[in-house]
Amino acid sequence: MTVRIVLVGTTHPGNIGAVARAMKNMGCNELVLVSPRYFPHEQASARASGAEDVLLHARVVGTLDEALTDCHFAVGASARSRAIEWPTLAPRECAARLLQENESGNVAVVMGPEKTGLSNEQLDRCHALLTIPADPGFSSLNIAMAVQVICYELRLASMVQLPPGEAAVPPATAAEMEYFYGHLEAVLADSGFLDVENPRTLMRRLRRLFIKAAPDRNEVNILRGILTAFERSLRKEPAE
Amino acid sequence: MTVRIVLVGTTHPGNIGAVARAMKNMGCNELVLVSPRYFPHEQASARASGAEDVLLHARVVGTLDEALTDCHFAVGASARSRAIEWPTLAPRECAARLLQENESGNVAVVMGPEKTGLSNEQLDRCHALLTIPADPGFSSLNIAMAVQVICYELRLASMVQLPPGEAAVPPATAAEMEYFYGHLEAVLADSGFLDVENPRTLMRRLRRLFIKAAPDRNEVNILRGILTAFERSLRKEPAE
Repeated sequence: MTVRIVLVGTTHPGNIGAVARAMKNMGCNELVLVSPRYFPHEQASARASGAEDVLLHARVVGTLDEALTDCHFAVGASARSRAIEWPTLAPRECAARLLQENESGNVAVVMGPEKTGLSNEQLDRCHALLTIPADPGFSSLNIAMAVQVICYELRLASMVQLPPGEAAVPPATAAEMEYFYGHLEAVLADSGFLDVENPRTLMRRLRRLFIKAAPDRNEVNILRGILTAFERSLRKEPAE
Repeated sequence: MTVRIVLVGTTHPGNIGAVARAMKNMGCNELVLVSPRYFPHEQASARASGAEDVLLHARVVGTLDEALTDCHFAVGASARSRAIEWPTLAPRECAARLLQENESGNVAVVMGPEKTGLSNEQLDRCHALLTIPADPGFSSLNIAMAVQVICYELRLASMVQLPPGEAAVPPATAAEMEYFYGHLEAVLADSGFLDVENPRTLMRRLRRLFIKAAPDRNEVNILRGILTAFERSLRKEPAE
Protein backbone atom coordinates (compact mmCIF):
# COMPACT_ATOMS: atom_id res chain seq x y z
CA MET A 1 0.00 0.00 0.00
CA THR A 2 1.61 3.24 -1.15
CA VAL A 3 -0.70 6.17 -1.00
CA ARG A 4 0.92 9.52 -1.57
CA ILE A 5 -0.08 12.36 0.71
CA VAL A 6 0.13 15.75 -1.01
CA LEU A 7 -0.03 18.96 1.03
CA VAL A 8 -0.69 22.10 -1.00
CA GLY A 9 0.45 25.50 0.25
CA THR A 10 0.66 24.52 3.91
CA THR A 11 1.19 27.66 5.96
CA HIS A 12 2.03 26.21 9.39
CA PRO A 13 5.18 24.07 9.43
CA GLY A 14 3.99 22.35 12.61
CA ASN A 15 1.15 20.83 10.61
CA ILE A 16 3.63 19.31 8.16
CA GLY A 17 5.39 17.58 11.04
CA ALA A 18 2.10 16.40 12.53
CA VAL A 19 1.12 14.98 9.14
CA ALA A 20 4.42 13.10 8.89
CA ARG A 21 3.87 11.55 12.31
CA ALA A 22 0.25 10.62 11.55
CA MET A 23 1.35 9.02 8.28
CA LYS A 24 4.19 7.01 9.81
CA ASN A 25 1.98 5.81 12.66
CA MET A 26 -0.29 4.29 10.03
CA GLY A 27 2.50 2.90 7.86
CA CYS A 28 2.41 5.58 5.13
CA ASN A 29 5.59 7.37 4.16
CA GLU A 30 5.28 9.13 0.79
CA LEU A 31 4.85 12.84 1.41
CA VAL A 32 4.87 15.53 -1.29
CA LEU A 33 4.77 19.22 -0.40
CA VAL A 34 3.52 21.73 -2.96
CA SER A 35 4.93 25.20 -2.25
CA PRO A 36 4.94 24.97 1.56
CA ARG A 37 5.35 28.38 3.14
CA TYR A 38 8.11 27.18 5.51
CA PHE A 39 10.00 23.95 4.96
CA PRO A 40 12.22 22.59 6.32
CA HIS A 41 11.43 24.18 9.67
CA GLU A 42 12.16 23.38 13.30
CA GLN A 43 8.45 23.26 14.13
CA ALA A 44 7.92 20.61 11.46
CA SER A 45 10.74 18.52 12.91
CA ALA A 46 9.49 18.99 16.48
CA ARG A 47 5.93 17.88 15.67
CA ALA A 48 7.15 14.96 13.55
CA SER A 49 8.42 13.54 16.83
CA GLY A 50 10.06 10.39 15.51
CA ALA A 51 8.86 10.68 11.92
CA GLU A 52 11.70 12.94 10.77
CA ASP A 53 12.55 10.33 8.11
CA VAL A 54 9.22 11.04 6.40
CA LEU A 55 10.12 14.74 6.31
CA LEU A 56 13.65 13.98 5.11
CA HIS A 57 12.31 12.02 2.16
CA ALA A 58 9.46 14.43 1.41
CA ARG A 59 9.52 15.80 -2.13
CA VAL A 60 8.99 19.55 -2.48
CA VAL A 61 7.50 20.73 -5.78
CA GLY A 62 6.12 23.97 -7.16
CA THR A 63 2.73 22.94 -8.49
CA LEU A 64 0.01 20.39 -7.83
CA ASP A 65 0.44 19.13 -11.40
CA GLU A 66 4.02 18.17 -10.61
CA ALA A 67 2.89 16.34 -7.49
CA LEU A 68 0.29 14.35 -9.43
CA THR A 69 1.92 13.90 -12.82
CA ASP A 70 2.47 10.13 -12.41
CA CYS A 71 -0.80 9.52 -10.52
CA HIS A 72 -3.89 8.16 -12.20
CA PHE A 73 -6.20 8.68 -9.24
CA ALA A 74 -6.32 11.49 -6.72
CA VAL A 75 -8.82 12.57 -4.09
CA GLY A 76 -9.00 16.09 -2.75
CA ALA A 77 -10.06 16.75 0.81
CA SER A 78 -12.84 19.26 1.27
CA ALA A 79 -15.14 20.27 4.08
CA ARG A 80 -17.02 22.79 1.96
CA SER A 81 -19.76 21.99 -0.44
CA ARG A 82 -18.95 22.97 -4.00
CA ALA A 83 -20.90 24.64 -6.79
CA ILE A 84 -20.28 21.75 -9.16
CA GLU A 85 -20.64 18.47 -7.44
CA TRP A 86 -17.69 16.12 -7.44
CA PRO A 87 -18.18 12.48 -6.54
CA THR A 88 -17.85 12.56 -2.76
CA LEU A 89 -16.31 9.76 -0.74
CA ALA A 90 -16.40 9.23 3.01
CA PRO A 91 -13.05 8.13 4.49
CA ARG A 92 -13.90 4.44 4.59
CA GLU A 93 -15.05 4.17 0.99
CA CYS A 94 -12.25 6.51 -0.05
CA ALA A 95 -9.67 4.18 1.50
CA ALA A 96 -11.15 1.17 -0.28
CA ARG A 97 -11.14 3.04 -3.58
CA LEU A 98 -7.56 4.24 -3.12
CA LEU A 99 -6.32 0.72 -2.49
CA GLN A 100 -8.26 -0.58 -5.46
CA GLU A 101 -6.86 2.11 -7.75
CA ASN A 102 -3.42 1.57 -6.24
CA GLU A 103 -3.34 -1.90 -7.80
CA SER A 104 -2.90 -0.33 -11.22
CA GLY A 105 -0.85 2.79 -10.47
CA ASN A 106 0.01 5.67 -8.21
CA VAL A 107 -2.69 7.31 -6.12
CA ALA A 108 -2.77 10.40 -3.93
CA VAL A 109 -4.73 12.25 -1.27
CA VAL A 110 -4.50 16.03 -1.60
CA MET A 111 -4.92 18.50 1.26
CA GLY A 112 -5.26 22.24 0.66
CA PRO A 113 -3.97 25.24 2.61
CA GLU A 114 -5.22 25.49 6.20
CA LYS A 115 -7.33 28.62 5.81
CA THR A 116 -8.82 28.18 2.37
CA GLY A 117 -8.69 24.49 1.45
CA LEU A 118 -8.25 23.44 -2.16
CA SER A 119 -9.38 25.83 -4.87
CA ASN A 120 -11.83 24.64 -7.48
CA GLU A 121 -8.98 24.62 -10.01
CA GLN A 122 -7.01 22.32 -7.72
CA LEU A 123 -10.02 20.07 -7.17
CA ASP A 124 -10.34 19.85 -10.94
CA ARG A 125 -7.13 17.78 -10.84
CA CYS A 126 -8.83 15.30 -8.50
CA HIS A 127 -11.14 12.45 -9.34
CA ALA A 128 -13.19 12.58 -6.18
CA LEU A 129 -13.70 14.56 -3.04
CA LEU A 130 -12.85 13.20 0.39
CA THR A 131 -15.28 14.52 2.97
CA ILE A 132 -14.89 13.51 6.58
CA PRO A 133 -18.23 13.32 8.37
CA ALA A 134 -18.12 16.13 10.92
CA ASP A 135 -20.45 18.32 12.92
CA PRO A 136 -22.06 20.59 10.30
CA GLY A 137 -21.61 23.53 12.65
CA PHE A 138 -17.85 22.97 12.95
CA SER A 139 -16.78 20.87 10.06
CA SER A 140 -13.24 21.93 9.23
CA LEU A 141 -10.66 19.52 10.59
CA ASN A 142 -7.03 20.46 11.05
CA ILE A 143 -5.18 19.01 8.03
CA ALA A 144 -3.04 16.67 10.13
CA MET A 145 -6.22 15.37 11.77
CA ALA A 146 -7.75 14.77 8.36
CA VAL A 147 -4.60 12.92 7.27
CA GLN A 148 -4.79 10.86 10.46
CA VAL A 149 -8.36 9.82 9.72
CA ILE A 150 -7.75 8.80 6.11
CA CYS A 151 -4.47 7.03 6.93
CA TYR A 152 -6.23 5.19 9.75
CA GLU A 153 -8.89 3.99 7.30
CA LEU A 154 -6.19 3.09 4.78
CA ARG A 155 -4.42 1.01 7.39
CA LEU A 156 -7.62 -0.80 8.34
CA ALA A 157 -8.48 -1.40 4.68
CA SER A 158 -4.99 -2.66 3.86
CA MET A 159 -5.15 -5.13 6.72
CA VAL A 160 -7.93 -6.89 4.84
CA GLN A 161 -6.41 -8.91 2.03
CA LEU A 162 -8.26 -8.23 -1.21
CA PRO A 163 -8.13 -10.50 -4.24
CA PRO A 164 -6.05 -8.71 -6.88
CA GLY A 165 -8.41 -7.54 -9.64
CA GLU A 166 -5.97 -6.12 -12.15
CA ALA A 167 -7.37 -3.97 -14.92
CA ALA A 168 -6.45 -5.33 -18.35
CA VAL A 169 -5.42 -1.87 -19.56
CA PRO A 170 -3.78 0.61 -17.22
CA PRO A 171 -5.80 3.71 -16.43
CA ALA A 172 -4.78 6.96 -18.06
CA THR A 173 -2.33 8.98 -16.01
CA ALA A 174 -3.01 12.52 -14.86
CA ALA A 175 -0.60 13.79 -17.52
CA GLU A 176 -2.42 11.92 -20.30
CA MET A 177 -5.72 13.30 -19.09
CA GLU A 178 -4.30 16.83 -19.08
CA TYR A 179 -3.21 16.41 -22.74
CA PHE A 180 -6.70 15.23 -23.54
CA TYR A 181 -8.37 18.16 -21.76
CA GLY A 182 -6.08 20.61 -23.54
CA HIS A 183 -6.89 19.01 -26.89
CA LEU A 184 -10.61 18.95 -26.12
CA GLU A 185 -10.60 22.61 -25.15
CA ALA A 186 -8.80 23.61 -28.37
CA VAL A 187 -11.23 21.68 -30.57
CA LEU A 188 -14.25 23.05 -28.70
CA ALA A 189 -12.91 26.57 -29.24
CA ASP A 190 -12.34 25.83 -32.96
CA SER A 191 -15.88 24.56 -33.32
CA GLY A 192 -17.32 27.64 -31.70
CA PHE A 193 -18.96 25.68 -28.89
CA LEU A 194 -16.54 27.03 -26.32
CA ASP A 195 -16.56 30.81 -26.16
CA VAL A 196 -12.98 31.52 -25.05
CA GLU A 197 -14.03 35.01 -23.97
CA ASN A 198 -16.69 33.57 -21.73
CA PRO A 199 -15.85 29.92 -21.02
CA ARG A 200 -17.93 29.73 -17.84
CA THR A 201 -17.83 26.28 -16.26
CA LEU A 202 -17.81 24.20 -19.44
CA MET A 203 -14.35 22.67 -19.05
CA ARG A 204 -14.87 21.98 -15.36
CA ARG A 205 -18.11 20.19 -16.12
CA LEU A 206 -16.45 18.12 -18.82
CA ARG A 207 -13.54 17.26 -16.51
CA ARG A 208 -15.98 16.05 -13.92
CA LEU A 209 -17.75 13.89 -16.50
CA PHE A 210 -14.55 12.27 -17.75
CA ILE A 211 -13.21 11.81 -14.23
CA LYS A 212 -16.32 9.82 -13.46
CA ALA A 213 -15.59 7.64 -16.50
CA ALA A 214 -11.99 7.03 -15.32
CA PRO A 215 -10.80 6.26 -18.86
CA ASP A 216 -8.08 3.70 -19.43
CA ARG A 217 -5.19 4.39 -21.78
CA ASN A 218 -6.95 2.93 -24.83
CA GLU A 219 -10.07 4.98 -24.21
CA VAL A 220 -8.13 8.22 -23.98
CA ASN A 221 -6.42 7.34 -27.24
CA ILE A 222 -9.81 6.84 -28.92
CA LEU A 223 -11.06 10.17 -27.58
CA ARG A 224 -7.97 11.95 -28.83
CA GLY A 225 -8.33 10.24 -32.20
CA ILE A 226 -11.87 11.59 -32.43
CA LEU A 227 -10.68 15.09 -31.59
CA THR A 228 -7.95 14.87 -34.23
CA ALA A 229 -10.52 13.76 -36.82
CA PHE A 230 -12.77 16.74 -35.95
CA GLU A 231 -9.80 19.06 -36.03
CA ARG A 232 -8.82 17.90 -39.52
CA SER A 233 -12.38 18.23 -40.83
CA LEU A 234 -12.76 21.68 -39.31
CA ARG A 235 -9.46 22.93 -40.67
CA LYS A 236 -9.78 21.39 -44.13
CA GLU A 237 -12.74 23.67 -44.73
CA PRO A 238 -12.30 26.51 -42.24
CA ALA A 239 -15.53 27.88 -40.80
CA GLU A 240 -16.34 31.35 -42.09
CA MET B 1 -24.17 10.67 22.53
CA THR B 2 -22.11 12.08 25.39
CA VAL B 3 -18.75 10.49 25.73
CA ARG B 4 -16.40 12.20 28.14
CA ILE B 5 -12.81 12.69 27.07
CA VAL B 6 -10.39 12.67 30.03
CA LEU B 7 -6.81 13.87 29.58
CA VAL B 8 -4.45 12.91 32.40
CA GLY B 9 -1.33 14.95 33.13
CA THR B 10 -1.08 16.52 29.70
CA THR B 11 2.26 18.32 29.43
CA HIS B 12 1.81 20.29 26.18
CA PRO B 13 -1.05 22.80 26.29
CA GLY B 14 -1.20 22.81 22.48
CA ASN B 15 -2.36 19.21 22.63
CA ILE B 16 -5.27 20.18 24.88
CA GLY B 17 -6.40 22.71 22.27
CA ALA B 18 -6.00 20.20 19.47
CA VAL B 19 -8.06 17.68 21.45
CA ALA B 20 -10.83 20.27 21.91
CA ARG B 21 -10.96 20.97 18.19
CA ALA B 22 -10.94 17.26 17.27
CA MET B 23 -13.78 16.65 19.75
CA LYS B 24 -15.91 19.53 18.54
CA ASN B 25 -15.40 18.54 14.88
CA MET B 26 -16.94 15.20 15.73
CA GLY B 27 -19.73 16.58 17.90
CA CYS B 28 -18.20 15.78 21.31
CA ASN B 29 -17.86 18.48 23.93
CA GLU B 30 -17.30 17.07 27.40
CA LEU B 31 -13.64 17.49 28.30
CA VAL B 32 -12.10 16.79 31.72
CA LEU B 33 -8.48 17.63 32.48
CA VAL B 34 -6.68 15.81 35.28
CA SER B 35 -3.76 17.89 36.58
CA PRO B 36 -2.73 19.47 33.28
CA ARG B 37 0.75 21.00 33.47
CA TYR B 38 -0.40 24.28 31.87
CA PHE B 39 -4.05 25.27 31.62
CA PRO B 40 -5.50 27.61 30.58
CA HIS B 41 -2.76 28.54 28.16
CA GLU B 42 -2.51 30.59 24.98
CA GLN B 43 -1.23 27.57 23.01
CA ALA B 44 -4.31 25.60 24.00
CA SER B 45 -6.56 28.42 22.80
CA ALA B 46 -4.60 28.84 19.57
CA ARG B 47 -4.79 25.17 18.65
CA ALA B 48 -8.48 24.95 19.63
CA SER B 49 -9.06 27.23 16.65
CA GLY B 50 -12.81 27.69 17.01
CA ALA B 51 -13.35 25.16 19.79
CA GLU B 52 -12.54 27.55 22.64
CA ASP B 53 -15.99 26.84 24.07
CA VAL B 54 -14.93 23.24 24.74
CA LEU B 55 -11.92 24.55 26.67
CA LEU B 56 -14.05 27.10 28.50
CA HIS B 57 -16.37 24.38 29.75
CA ALA B 58 -13.60 21.89 30.47
CA ARG B 59 -13.54 20.68 34.06
CA VAL B 60 -10.13 20.62 35.73
CA VAL B 61 -9.69 18.07 38.54
CA GLY B 62 -6.81 16.73 40.59
CA THR B 63 -7.15 12.98 40.16
CA LEU B 64 -8.41 10.44 37.68
CA ASP B 65 -10.84 9.16 40.32
CA GLU B 66 -12.51 12.56 40.43
CA ALA B 67 -12.80 12.58 36.63
CA LEU B 68 -14.43 9.15 36.57
CA THR B 69 -16.46 9.21 39.79
CA ASP B 70 -19.84 9.31 38.02
CA CYS B 71 -18.83 7.02 35.13
CA HIS B 72 -19.71 3.34 35.01
CA PHE B 73 -17.56 2.53 31.99
CA ALA B 74 -14.16 3.88 30.98
CA VAL B 75 -11.58 2.86 28.41
CA GLY B 76 -7.94 3.81 28.68
CA ALA B 77 -5.88 4.45 25.57
CA SER B 78 -2.63 2.59 25.29
CA ALA B 79 -0.14 1.85 22.54
CA ARG B 80 2.04 -0.29 24.76
CA SER B 81 1.41 -3.88 25.62
CA ARG B 82 0.89 -4.33 29.32
CA ALA B 83 2.13 -6.81 31.87
CA ILE B 84 -1.39 -7.59 33.01
CA GLU B 85 -3.70 -7.95 30.07
CA TRP B 86 -6.75 -5.76 29.94
CA PRO B 87 -9.54 -6.49 27.48
CA THR B 88 -8.39 -4.67 24.35
CA LEU B 89 -10.73 -2.87 21.95
CA ALA B 90 -9.97 -1.46 18.51
CA PRO B 91 -11.47 2.01 17.88
CA ARG B 92 -14.49 0.76 15.97
CA GLU B 93 -15.56 -1.82 18.53
CA CYS B 94 -14.65 0.60 21.30
CA ALA B 95 -17.00 3.21 19.84
CA ALA B 96 -19.83 0.69 19.61
CA ARG B 97 -19.22 -0.42 23.19
CA LEU B 98 -19.09 3.16 24.48
CA LEU B 99 -22.42 4.02 22.85
CA GLN B 100 -23.96 0.85 24.17
CA GLU B 101 -22.73 1.56 27.72
CA ASN B 102 -23.77 5.18 27.33
CA GLU B 103 -27.41 4.08 27.22
CA SER B 104 -27.21 3.27 30.91
CA GLY B 105 -24.87 5.96 32.23
CA ASN B 106 -21.78 8.08 31.81
CA VAL B 107 -18.82 6.75 29.88
CA ALA B 108 -15.29 8.05 29.31
CA VAL B 109 -12.17 7.68 27.21
CA VAL B 110 -8.96 8.31 29.14
CA MET B 111 -5.67 9.50 27.60
CA GLY B 112 -2.43 9.51 29.56
CA PRO B 113 0.51 11.91 29.57
CA GLU B 114 2.30 12.33 26.22
CA LYS B 115 5.61 10.73 27.17
CA THR B 116 4.54 7.90 29.42
CA GLY B 117 0.91 7.08 28.70
CA LEU B 118 -1.36 5.84 31.48
CA SER B 119 0.26 4.07 34.41
CA ASN B 120 -0.91 0.61 35.38
CA GLU B 121 -2.59 2.16 38.43
CA GLN B 122 -4.53 4.51 36.15
CA LEU B 123 -5.47 1.66 33.82
CA ASP B 124 -6.84 -0.17 36.87
CA ARG B 125 -9.60 2.47 36.88
CA CYS B 126 -10.56 1.49 33.33
CA HIS B 127 -12.72 -1.36 32.09
CA ALA B 128 -10.93 -1.89 28.81
CA LEU B 129 -7.98 -0.77 26.79
CA LEU B 130 -8.34 1.20 23.57
CA THR B 131 -5.58 0.32 21.12
CA ILE B 132 -5.42 2.04 17.75
CA PRO B 133 -3.99 -0.24 15.07
CA ALA B 134 -0.68 1.34 14.12
CA ASP B 135 2.63 0.40 12.57
CA PRO B 136 4.31 -1.81 15.20
CA GLY B 137 7.57 0.03 14.58
CA PHE B 138 6.04 3.45 15.33
CA SER B 139 2.89 2.88 17.27
CA SER B 140 2.51 5.89 19.57
CA LEU B 141 0.01 8.42 18.26
CA ASN B 142 -0.08 12.00 19.44
CA ILE B 143 -2.92 12.19 22.01
CA ALA B 144 -4.98 14.62 19.95
CA MET B 145 -4.68 12.26 16.97
CA ALA B 146 -5.85 9.37 19.12
CA VAL B 147 -8.80 11.46 20.30
CA GLN B 148 -9.56 12.32 16.66
CA VAL B 149 -9.67 8.65 15.69
CA ILE B 150 -11.93 7.53 18.54
CA CYS B 151 -14.23 10.55 18.18
CA TYR B 152 -14.44 9.89 14.43
CA GLU B 153 -15.51 6.31 15.14
CA LEU B 154 -17.97 7.54 17.76
CA ARG B 155 -19.48 9.93 15.26
CA LEU B 156 -19.85 7.22 12.63
CA ALA B 157 -21.36 4.87 15.17
CA SER B 158 -23.82 7.48 16.43
CA MET B 159 -24.94 8.65 13.01
CA VAL B 160 -28.38 7.37 12.28
CA GLN B 161 -29.03 5.92 8.89
CA LEU B 162 -29.25 8.91 6.60
CA PRO B 163 -31.56 8.93 3.60
CA PRO B 164 -29.61 8.19 0.42
CA GLY B 165 -28.04 11.41 -0.92
CA GLU B 166 -30.12 12.19 -3.95
CA ALA B 167 -28.24 13.64 -6.88
CA ALA B 168 -29.28 17.22 -7.60
CA VAL B 169 -29.72 16.37 -11.27
CA PRO B 170 -31.40 13.11 -12.31
CA PRO B 171 -29.31 10.66 -14.32
CA ALA B 172 -29.91 10.47 -18.04
CA THR B 173 -32.49 7.89 -19.04
CA ALA B 174 -31.69 4.96 -21.31
CA ALA B 175 -33.67 6.68 -24.10
CA GLU B 176 -31.67 9.90 -23.74
CA MET B 177 -28.45 7.90 -23.87
CA GLU B 178 -29.64 6.14 -27.04
CA TYR B 179 -30.34 9.50 -28.72
CA PHE B 180 -26.87 10.59 -27.70
CA TYR B 181 -25.20 7.44 -29.08
CA GLY B 182 -27.10 7.82 -32.36
CA HIS B 183 -26.05 11.45 -32.62
CA LEU B 184 -22.43 10.59 -31.73
CA GLU B 185 -22.33 7.85 -34.37
CA ALA B 186 -23.66 10.19 -37.06
CA VAL B 187 -21.14 12.93 -36.27
CA LEU B 188 -18.27 10.43 -36.10
CA ALA B 189 -19.29 9.15 -39.54
CA ASP B 190 -19.47 12.74 -40.88
CA SER B 191 -16.00 13.49 -39.57
CA GLY B 192 -14.58 10.38 -41.19
CA PHE B 193 -13.39 8.88 -37.90
CA LEU B 194 -16.01 6.15 -38.04
CA ASP B 195 -15.81 4.04 -41.16
CA VAL B 196 -19.43 2.98 -41.63
CA GLU B 197 -18.33 0.15 -43.92
CA ASN B 198 -16.03 -1.20 -41.22
CA PRO B 199 -17.18 0.18 -37.86
CA ARG B 200 -15.47 -2.54 -35.81
CA THR B 201 -15.90 -2.07 -32.08
CA LEU B 202 -15.70 1.73 -31.92
CA MET B 203 -19.27 2.41 -30.80
CA ARG B 204 -19.19 -0.40 -28.26
CA ARG B 205 -16.02 1.01 -26.76
CA LEU B 206 -17.54 4.49 -26.56
CA ARG B 207 -20.72 3.14 -25.01
CA ARG B 208 -18.66 1.39 -22.35
CA LEU B 209 -16.78 4.63 -21.61
CA PHE B 210 -19.94 6.72 -21.23
CA ILE B 211 -21.64 4.03 -19.19
CA LYS B 212 -18.78 4.29 -16.72
CA ALA B 213 -19.33 8.06 -16.54
CA ALA B 214 -23.06 7.62 -15.81
CA PRO B 215 -23.90 11.10 -17.14
CA ASP B 216 -26.71 13.08 -15.61
CA ARG B 217 -29.26 14.90 -17.76
CA ASN B 218 -27.26 18.14 -17.86
CA GLU B 219 -24.12 16.35 -18.91
CA VAL B 220 -25.82 14.57 -21.78
CA ASN B 221 -27.23 17.90 -22.93
CA ILE B 222 -23.72 19.38 -22.96
CA LEU B 223 -22.40 16.42 -24.95
CA ARG B 224 -25.21 16.72 -27.49
CA GLY B 225 -24.59 20.48 -27.71
CA ILE B 226 -20.97 19.75 -28.57
CA LEU B 227 -22.02 17.27 -31.26
CA THR B 228 -24.42 19.80 -32.75
CA ALA B 229 -21.67 22.43 -32.85
CA PHE B 230 -19.36 20.00 -34.65
CA GLU B 231 -22.12 19.06 -37.04
CA ARG B 232 -22.78 22.67 -37.93
CA SER B 233 -19.10 23.39 -38.48
CA LEU B 234 -18.70 20.28 -40.61
CA ARG B 235 -21.79 20.91 -42.72
CA LYS B 236 -21.29 24.63 -43.16
CA GLU B 237 -18.22 23.80 -45.19
CA PRO B 238 -18.83 20.30 -46.52
CA ALA B 239 -15.76 18.12 -46.73
CA GLU B 240 -14.52 17.63 -50.29
